[in-house]
Parts: sequence; C-alpha cells; structure tokens
Amino acid sequence: VTAAPRAVVLVTGDEVLRGRVSDRNGAHLSRRLDAAGVHVEAVSIIGDRLDGIRDAVGAALSRGIDLICTTGGLGPTHDDLTMAAVAAAAGRDLPVDPTALAMVEGRSAGIDAGPASAERTRRKQASLPFGASVIPPAGTAPGCVLTVGSSVIVVLPGPPWELRAMWEAVSHDDPALVALLGRASVPDERIVRIHGIGESRLVEVLEERGAPAAGGLMFGVCAKDAELELTLRGDATAADRLLNHLVGRLGDGVFSSDGTTLDALIASTLTRRGETVAVAESCTGGALGARLTAATGASAFMRGGIIAYSNAIKRDLLGVEPGLLDRHGAVSAECAAAMADGARAALGSTWALSVTGIAGPGGGGPGKPVGLVYLGRGGPTGTVVEEHRFRGDRDEVRRRSLAAALHLLRKGL
Amino acid sequence: VTAAPRAVVLVTGDEVLRGRVSDRNGAHLSRRLDAAGVHVEAVSIIGDRLDGIRDAVGAALSRGIDLICTTGGLGPTHDDLTMAAVAAAAGRDLPVDPTALAMVEGRSAGIDAGPASAERTRRKQASLPFGASVIPPAGTAPGCVLTVGSSVIVVLPGPPWELRAMWEAVSHDDPALVALLGRASVPDERIVRIHGIGESRLVEVLEERGAPAAGGLMFGVCAKDAELELTLRGDATAADRLLNHLVGRLGDGVFSSDGTTLDALIASTLTRRGETVAVAESCTGGALGARLTAATGASAFMRGGIIAYSNAIKRDLLGVEPGLLDRHGAVSAECAAAMADGARAALGSTWALSVTGIAGPGGGGPGKPVGLVYLGRGGPTGTVVEEHRFRGDRDEVRRRSLAAALHLLRKGL
Repeated sequence: VTAAPRAVVLVTGDEVLRGRVSDRNGAHLSRRLDAAGVHVEAVSIIGDRLDGIRDAVGAALSRGIDLICTTGGLGPTHDDLTMAAVAAAAGRDLPVDPTALAMVEGRSAGIDAGPASAERTRRKQASLPFGASVIPPAGTAPGCVLTVGSSVIVVLPGPPWELRAMWEAVSHDDPALVALLGRASVPDERIVRIHGIGESRLVEVLEERGAPAAGGLMFGVCAKDAELELTLRGDATAADRLLNHLVGRLGDGVFSSDGTTLDALIASTLTRRGETVAVAESCTGGALGARLTAATGASAFMRGGIIAYSNAIKRDLLGVEPGLLDRHGAVSAECAAAMADGARAALGSTWALSVTGIAGPGGGGPGKPVGLVYLGRGGPTGTVVEEHRFRGDRDEVRRRSLAAALHLLRKGL
Repeated sequence: VTAAPRAVVLVTGDEVLRGRVSDRNGAHLSRRLDAAGVHVEAVSIIGDRLDGIRDAVGAALSRGIDLICTTGGLGPTHDDLTMAAVAAAAGRDLPVDPTALAMVEGRSAGIDAGPASAERTRRKQASLPFGASVIPPAGTAPGCVLTVGSSVIVVLPGPPWELRAMWEAVSHDDPALVALLGRASVPDERIVRIHGIGESRLVEVLEERGAPAAGGLMFGVCAKDAELELTLRGDATAADRLLNHLVGRLGDGVFSSDGTTLDALIASTLTRRGETVAVAESCTGGALGARLTAATGASAFMRGGIIAYSNAIKRDLLGVEPGLLDRHGAVSAECAAAMADGARAALGSTWALSVTGIAGPGGGGPGKPVGLVYLGRGGPTGTVVEEHRFRGDRDEVRRRSLAAALHLLRKGL
C-alpha cells in the first residue's frame, strides 16, 4: 500500500483574499481531488504579490507535495502574476510559448483593446515557465502543467467555469498529471444523509456501536442546511452493519445511504414516475425554483412557478382569497396551503410547494417573529403544511426554507 | 503612521477541505477585516486534525500575526477539535468555563440526545483555553477570544449565520479585539464598477494616465460576472481625476463610482421612484427573482414573477401565443419580448424582465447553441430585447444571464 498523493491548492487573488469575490475554485478542486483519492492538505487563499505566490509554491515544493494546483492570476493585468511566480519558485525562465501564443491569438477576438496593448497582453498570457506543457484555454488564458522534481504543478485560471473545464481536460490528457492521479486509489467510502436528527443524537447512536473506529471504520459528520452528512471510510461490511443500525434507530431520517443528494433524489423520483412539480414562493423569491432547475434534466419534472412576493400576486395569480389574507395574514398555515393549491391548479402539476415567511431582518412582529416560515405541499394525497421557526439571518432563513421545502416534497413522494 | 494589523483566517473542517461544503466564512471575515483596515495575509482551509490546527495557530503566533481567526470545529462530535488545538498552541489548559457552560445549557433545548451524552456534549462545548473570554453562542456553540503575547486569537463557529452574528457582537464588545481594530485605519479607497468593457481595454485606458501608480494611486481590477470592479487606493484627488478620465473614455460603462453594487443601485432607484418590477424566467428558473429579493427592503419594488420553465406555462400564464412558439421557438427574441410583456401585464408592474435561453449542457442545436440567451425588458418606454451568447457551463450561463438581465434593467431606468 502506497500513501495517497498529497496536494495543496493555492487560490491567488487580492479580490478573493479581501472577500470581494467568494472563491469557488478551491472547493471544486478539492472535491475532485478527494474523489480521486488524493489527500488535500490545505487550500490557501493568498494575495496577488509575486513573492507571496512564489514562496507558497516554493514551500510546497520543498515539502515534497506531490501536486500543487494554483488558481487565478492568468489575466492581462499587471497584478496577474502566477506564471511568473511559478517560474521563479521552480527556478525557470518565462519564455513566450509558441503553442500558447497561437491559442491566445485564436481566442482574442473578443478583446477590445488597441493593437499594441493587445499584442502585449497576448504575449503575457502566452508566457509559460520553461519546460511547461500548455493547457488550452477554455476562455482566453491558457494554463500549464510543470513537473519539478517529483512534484507536479498545475496552473489554472480564476474564472470558475474556465477552471472546471480545463481541470477536466488536463486531468485526462496530461501524462504527468494522469500518472500522478493513477497512483491514487479511489477511497472505499459511503456517504449517508440524515434529516431531522441532531448531531448529538447521531453521535450517540454511532457510539452505541463503539464508533469512532468501530471495526476499522473512520467516520466524519458534517452538518449543512437541514441535514447531516455522515461519511464512512473503510471496511464495506462494517459500514453496512453500521448503516443497518442507523436505519433501525433513526428510521426514515436516513434518507440516502449511497451519497445521492436530496436534489438528485427528488429529480430522479419525479422523472421516473413522470410526475411534475411547481412552486409558489414568497420570502424565497424564486430561489426554490432556481434550486429545482440547477441541474440539467429539470425540464422532465419542473413546470414552473409563481413568485408571489406581494399579496396582490398571491390573490390574483394563486387565487388566495382576500378574506383569508385579512384573517390570517400572508405568513400563515392557511396562506401556505392556499398558495400550494393555487400553484398546483394554475400550473397543472402533480405536486406543488409553497413558501411564505418572514426572512427578516424587518417584518417580524408579536406572534410572528423573524424566521417564522410556513411551507405547503399540494399533491395527489392532499395538502400538507409545516410551520418552522428558523434561527439565523435573512440568508440563513431563506436557505433553511429551501431545504425544508425539498424535504417536505421528499416525504410526500 | 503605524503598519496595518496583520491577520490570518484559519478555516477548519474536513468537509470544507474536501469540498463537500463551500466555505463562506473566510470570505466574510476577510471582507469585514479588509473594510476595517486590517491586512489579511492568507485564508487557509485545513482539516480537522488536532495537530494540524495547533501547528497552523502556532505558526501564526510565532510569526507575530496580530489577529488569528479560526472558524469551525466547535460542535459536539469527536472531530470538533479547535478549542483543544488553540489551547495546545497557546500552551494553556482547557477547563470548563462556568459562564460558557451556563450559556450552553440555556441553548441546548433542541438537542435530542440522551442525558449522559448531552451532559458530555455541553461540557465539551463549554471548555475554553484558560484565560479566554467567552463569546456568547448565536446557535449552540460559544466561541472565545484569547490573548497570547501581542496576538489575539478569535475562535468562531462554522455555521455561517452563527459566525456572522458572533463576529458582529465580539468585534464591538471584546476589549482586546476592539483595541486591535482601533489600531487599524479604514483605507481611503474608491470602488468603481464598469460594465461592457473588457479587462484589457480598461487597463489600456488606465495606462493612458500613467497608471499603475499614477499620482500615488494603487489600483486593482477584478472581473466578476459581467462587470469589472476597479479598486483605487490612495490620494482622493488623484482618484477623482482618474475617474473623470475613465468616464470620459468609457461613458456610461462606468455605472457606479462609489462602490454601490448593481443590485443596490436597482433597488434604490426603483424604491425612490415608487416603481416596481416583475420577472418571467425560463432557463434561470427563479434565480433572477431570488437575486432581486436577496436584500431586505425588496417588498418596496418587487411584485413577483412567473417561472415559465415549460412552454405550457409561457402560453397559459404569460400569454405567449402558441403560434409564436411554433414559429420562433421558446428561445427567441420574439418569445423573450412576449414573456416580458406578459409578466408586466399579469403582475401589473412598472418594469418586467424576461430570460429564455439554453443553459446546457443539453438542449442546444443548429443555430441555437448552448449559451444562447434572450433577455427582455418591458417598461414604460416599450419593450427591448437583447441576444447573448454566453460561454461556460450551465451554472455560468445562468449567472451571466442574471447579471445581464439586471444591467438591461439598469440601462432602462
């Protein structure tokens, strides 16, 4: 048994370091690497300074890290310094690479700068550390792969979709990277998803079977949104036994035992049955519809929805009776039920989900605090309403509402 | 002039390091620290191992970093180790803090574990490094502030809303942290937002005035979504002059010169005028509505919308003629215009925005490739349509569509 290759991810960019942009690349790369069996030691966000990037790459090289991925700093401006920093860390020159130059020239139709400046930009973006192999650009900037001793450095751009596309390509095409990934073994792992159970309770149930470390299993618990994600690594038979124990104790709180996400479970169930869903959203403003359509294939089951942010829309488009709104208010179980029924009727769907609540920070009052959210589910077996009192700020209340609404649908399917 | 306090942010958690959860805390803290004039040197994501966290905190202490913020690892499970790691790095014991214990007991009503396990959990979550002052929990886990030599360590929880609330509290309440932040001076900075101009073109225009470093100005350019964010730091008069130059050369591509975001600009303009907006969304599935309602105060201008993911909904709820759909298809300028007009009529709003396109990866065809998106704007001065051909994957095409739709609205206001 050889040890898993070790990796670090270096996210460069003052805009990320200063929180102006949320990094999405570090999580993407570490997820991909983790799935391939590479051990990611750290993801570090550092600034746009040449010496800072050089030192971080150099430190990883001197520690014998097998794979060093950098993101960002490949653009045309003077603070795009990653190629120069990697060259400096590796003790290499930074010549213009003719292959990269041809790629950049083929991509630069959209650049609206003058000719002299454009030429300088192209040459800058085509300058790679000596000995590197170019990664063809998905957008405008090429990346590169550079082998230094036993380490492989992969230099990728900052725009997330470019990074995603170029990583997929290079991880299948580049001989040095393919060889490195070939030394990793994909972990024997099972992901279990649990809803409606507290983290403490889950730990207690796990410990009934002597976990952690029961029968050579490693486990980790991650709480996100309204669910717990339990990762089991190690002996598959022991994992099966522990899973049976969990299901016995926690019942259908264990909603996924093979890693399938809530969203994928709903999509596949609806698609398989030929059923459809519609939404009626107030405080979430469309975010539930956006989540239901985030993955490809949503047109098989998603009909659409009505964003009824104002009461007039609840009345006019969802058919919520004005008297009901007067008596109970828009944030009420009655309104959630009427919204779900109204959406199902207006959109002709098998199922409908409704959300009405007080996301805050304003709008709360006596008996109706910020965080009070009513969810409705209309469907073939009738209409069901849930009341939730979420803690947290506006963003958190909206996120929690989405997760709870999808679980409400799941429980109906 | 004293140097700005230096900070590092240590994000702990295998689930973050392995990309199962996207970190939002690092960006939040670095944005808050940057705005306060603290220089964030790095944001590092590290695993849940005691020695790894201890070593990272210890390295920052030995480098004399003024402020070390940790996030995550304060939960009840065995892999929640941050308090123990910070104590080890500081050479302190880890006693149960009576104040923290009382807070945890007051918060534990929601914990559904048995009594013995719950007691152990509470004592674990109330154990702080000796000499630390407790940060009252927003959720269930308290944090702490610990002064070690000239460094201040702030230990915060992982759930983003808890972290946000506890940071706001402690940054105003804790004497050591308040003193540290008092030594920072808020930077003299101007943020300029530009739309429809390439990064290369912007750099060229900046260089006409001798920038970078023109008249003692520092600048940085950050490309995100469909805009460029230009940050100018230094002499305010020089910044004014450079800004005038930019406006002269780039016209109303410069849509914000005081940092106001596109979203805030739209919200304030609509609110001030007493105008309203509605949306009609196909490929974005509700994400435009979600974005328009993400900030508080949206009920002043947002009426709602129709998510018309299927053609039947475009026809039935937005009044798009079946003949139009047959002749031009749902992804067409004609359909975008009809959707915007239909939403404006159905929702009675001043303005309406529509989105119809092919987000991919499937659904493209000859003449209608993935990334083809039509946007419509209905309003008092008529209906306008834009055609876009976005590069990127599904997520990117949807994001770009939102940004372009909001810019289309802005240009109409």
